Amino acid sequence: MNQSFEEGSVTSVQGYIAAGIACGIKKRKKDLALIFSESSCSVAGTFTLNKVKAAPLLVTQEIVKQHTKVKAVLINSGNANACTGEEGHKDALEMQSYCAEKLGLQPNEVLIASTGVIGQRLPMDKLKTGIEQIVPALKHCGGKEAAEAIMTTDKTTKHLSLNIKLKHGSVNLGVISKGSGMIAPNMATMLGFITTDADIDSTTLHELLLPSVNASFNKISVDGETSTNDMVLLLANGTSKIKIENDTEDFRVFQSALENMCIEMAKSIVSDGEGATRLVSVNVKNARNQKDADLVAKSIANSSLVKTAIYGADANWGRIISAAGHSGADFNPDDVTVSFDNLPVLKPNFNIVVNEDLASKVLSKEEFSINIDLGAGDAKTTWWTCDLTEEYVRINSDYRT
Amino acid sequence: MNQSFEEGSVTSVQGYIAAGIACGIKKRKKDLALIFSESSCSVAGTFTLNKVKAAPLLVTQEIVKQHTKVKAVLINSGNANACTGEEGHKDALEMQSYCAEKLGLQPNEVLIASTGVIGQRLPMDKLKTGIEQIVPALKHCGGKEAAEAIMTTDKTTKHLSLNIKLKHGSVNLGVISKGSGMIAPNMATMLGFITTDADIDSTTLHELLLPSVNASFNKISVDGETSTNDMVLLLANGTSKIKIENDTEDFRVFQSALENMCIEMAKSIVSDGEGATRLVSVNVKNARNQKDADLVAKSIANSSLVKTAIYGADANWGRIISAAGHSGADFNPDDVTVSFDNLPVLKPNFNIVVNEDLASKVLSKEEFSINIDLGAGDAKTTWWTCDLTEEYVRINSDYRT
Repeated sequence: MNQSFEEGSVTSVQGYIAAGIACGIKKRKKDLALIFSESSCSVAGTFTLNKVKAAPLLVTQEIVKQHTKVKAVLINSGNANACTGEEGHKDALEMQSYCAEKLGLQPNEVLIASTGVIGQRLPMDKLKTGIEQIVPALKHCGGKEAAEAIMTTDKTTKHLSLNIKLKHGSVNLGVISKGSGMIAPNMATMLGFITTDADIDSTTLHELLLPSVNASFNKISVDGETSTNDMVLLLANGTSKIKIENDTEDFRVFQSALENMCIEMAKSIVSDGEGATRLVSVNVKNARNQKDADLVAKSIANSSLVKTAIYGADANWGRIISAAGHSGADFNPDDVTVSFDNLPVLKPNFNIVVNEDLASKVLSKEEFSINIDLGAGDAKTTWWTCDLTEEYVRINSDYRT
Repeated sequence: MNQSFEEGSVTSVQGYIAAGIACGIKKRKKDLALIFSESSCSVAGTFTLNKVKAAPLLVTQEIVKQHTKVKAVLINSGNANACTGEEGHKDALEMQSYCAEKLGLQPNEVLIASTGVIGQRLPMDKLKTGIEQIVPALKHCGGKEAAEAIMTTDKTTKHLSLNIKLKHGSVNLGVISKGSGMIAPNMATMLGFITTDADIDSTTLHELLLPSVNASFNKISVDGETSTNDMVLLLANGTSKIKIENDTEDFRVFQSALENMCIEMAKSIVSDGEGATRLVSVNVKNARNQKDADLVAKSIANSSLVKTAIYGADANWGRIISAAGHSGADFNPDDVTVSFDNLPVLKPNFNIVVNEDLASKVLSKEEFSINIDLGAGDAKTTWWTCDLTEEYVRINSDYRT
């Protein structure tokens, strides 16, 4: 892989500037982020499958659908502007057009996103004052501040950048994202903003983004929820002058790098799941088909009983196999093999080979894998999950107060 | 309704005796139960849909399938005899035949069930000694002791009885059950044993049992899990000499009584969910069709975010509507109405009418309802759920130790 992860972000990529400020939606913390590209960008996006979609998400999704070129992404945290009806939709459009005006752009050159509490109107006065302040604050090293401003219950900022060597030179990828609770298949309360300086048209950009998101953000679980506001956007401003076209070697190299970057982000989101103390890869192999592989991995990754057992470092493979059993996948329980990292736990015909002490050591690690071989075919998948802790309950029973 | 719930159990019904003792599978508590009918019984049963089925469940399911007449049900707690392979299957058969021998019956006149830890062999010596002790302990008032002996992490025993007035006299229904954690649609780690003295053939008995279980035990959720061992059995010994045939008024009266009894049991299981402090009815109405109604209710009942908000008495209707939104049901979010008990929370077009103080009072009650009107059709359903607490996490991260 011609790539290396760096301590960068969206502004490590040529032609992008950003900022993150506090405008008073949250009590004290940063709550408004702006990413700006000096030249127009193609854009691709993936959006929540929740039937209930937040107003800003609908506005952005419409622009992405129309393959419009854009120059900015404005994101607020602290308030999701979801379930706010017609008034909320007007607020979203005003947030967009006010930002466009201050940037000297057309409204549909500005994408918008919100995250936070559902069902409360955006404080538009604060937001507009914030927009007036954030535009002059844009800077070349502003990506990490933007990463900070999109956090909700996240404990750590999430950002990365990457240089990719292609046939005729190199291009850059940068990302900021937020996750924490309500993370589940299909990107619950998860935001990701990716920038590249490659020259890629929006159709090709979608073909790069979709498989990357499917292999990463759509295979993580904190609590099995999906939310109203989630999106991943990929912007390409062409500043590098290096064009990437579909079905080329460069396309494959770029896609692989993008996918790896998304997986790193997805894992950092799970690690930072609300109250989480462990990051667990759930590797399913030899499933009858791809659908079954994902059903089993998802069922294990979402199981409250598996997740509490992980928290207790309890080698409770029974809960793992029970979760596989109620996933809907077709397999013969007698053929199943389970291991934790490289430690065999269960062999076929329910031959239990686990050494509880060694298993408990593996399960006490901050990061380890649960491996399950279904012996039913040759499909495989990897999902990521975290443990379920008292702290998760505390955070979520007390979120709004 | 010609019925009244009593503080009874399986032995409040004519012709049944029972016992519950401690045989040492658990450290101190009762762990072996036996229900015995003086005359042969028709039997109906519903069983877990988990792909991974415990050995005793497979043995019992086979007998029920063959419409064999039975006279006894032997249940142990503390060990599920699940995921124990060929040896576990032999243990189950030995448990059955040893009990039959001591009762002077054929093996297939004895149904068996187990609940507890997965993946460990049954301590057969202790179990056999227990069988020797429990047979002479059978008594007319033994139902409550049997209810105690089938508990795992349950905090309360679960038992009821009911007298039903029919055209030509009255018949009785009695039940003992256990639930607590791992309760989800399709009866996870849930056992229910129901007796009646009505005279009902096994085909009719199934037609009475299935809709009752679907309206009760299959609509409850503690943590969204389903397990390897769950079953509900209904035994009819005919001692009352009152015959119930399909498609009669008596059939409908009996079915309604049975369903109400199952709902009472199901609610008591949810109330006693691991760590639970609230019992919540989730009423969905005006769904497009029955499937959508159940999808929405199930998604809300299983949502960790809704369940933690309930724990925090937080009127977070946003999480409720978000859970409905990712259920897969088809509806227009603008048409949705939400109330807590009789307190309006959300009206169509996201018209938020909630009074947070009043709502918090409703949510602080031990029992209340979440009502959601989808405005999409005329189908409705009720599910039951509980809150998700730190105590749930503590119990389940520490279960085996």
